[in-house]
Amino acid sequence: MIMNLKQYVRNIPDFPVKGIQFKDVTTLFKEAKILQELSDMLYDKYRNCGITKVAGIESRGFIMGPLLAVRLGAGFIPIRKPGKLPAAVYEESYSKEYGTDAVQIHKDAISEGETVLLHDDLLATGGTMAASIRLLAKFNPRQIYVNCLIELEELNGRATFAPDVKVDTIIKY
Amino acid sequence: MIMNLKQYVRNIPDFPVKGIQFKDVTTLFKEAKILQELSDMLYDKYRNCGITKVAGIESRGFIMGPLLAVRLGAGFIPIRKPGKLPAAVYEESYSKEYGTDAVQIHKDAISEGETVLLHDDLLATGGTMAASIRLLAKFNPRQIYVNCLIELEELNGRATFAPDVKVDTIIKY
Repeated sequence: MIMNLKQYVRNIPDFPVKGIQFKDVTTLFKEAKILQELSDMLYDKYRNCGITKVAGIESRGFIMGPLLAVRLGAGFIPIRKPGKLPAAVYEESYSKEYGTDAVQIHKDAISEGETVLLHDDLLATGGTMAASIRLLAKFNPRQIYVNCLIELEELNGRATFAPDVKVDTIIKY
Repeated sequence: MIMNLKQYVRNIPDFPVKGIQFKDVTTLFKEAKILQELSDMLYDKYRNCGITKVAGIESRGFIMGPLLAVRLGAGFIPIRKPGKLPAAVYEESYSKEYGTDAVQIHKDAISEGETVLLHDDLLATGGTMAASIRLLAKFNPRQIYVNCLIELEELNGRATFAPDVKVDTIIKY
């Protein structure tokens, strides 16, 4: 049963700043049946891909990422903002509207030749996701899959990704 | 099969500040079999408690919380630092070593009479957890359960919680 997921995404005008129509996913997660439906949809998409690690981007990517990892029989890897991961890390920076930011991953998170699914809630301009893909590429994985719950298609964030990455999203605006 | 989970927790001396022995849980989550084991253990603990919502505390509480919600047939609710949740919120502050901090929850997250499981990775002094319990109490739930993966018992954080809360933890130091 495929529900109309869009009706469960709450639109918040002018958050966090004026002019942004923020897509609030908490209204998806709080409904048990929708959380189950999303879990099933993601599992069906990736069940035959041989995924051994799921990486989630802090912090909303932590919500569906580990859940999917358990269903796929994979491990879960957090990708975090600087200063949060306690052991040795790789870091990649990316440009934001004002200034730059960075993401980190533990150096012992993934082994060479693994198949990795990178998950976040939202794909907008793709800056954080592209930097996270560069982090994963350092491990020489067999394949990188990218999944987001929501994609803002007019921003064309996926155009910034390496061409061999396989991208899929569930709810498109 | 109960594994020796402690051997998968990585101890990081002097992180984030000198004198702290940081318990790194990323080394639990990256092992597929341990993630599955934790998922099974948590599910077995709470399967007969009638839980309708699982609340997780930003951001490491987002890792096991939603996974458990799906298995229990419950919804997932994020408890976050100020400025992150986009709709109307309740807020509770708590003292830290230097100054105060606060946590927020969406006002429409939970209905009266629900049974709520509150999850985080680590129970230390219990400040964030006690504030999160106060947030949940505003909804007049039938029962609040609290679960953490790790408890630092000598800090006795659970002594700061309301007495009718049911607390359980998995790995004790």
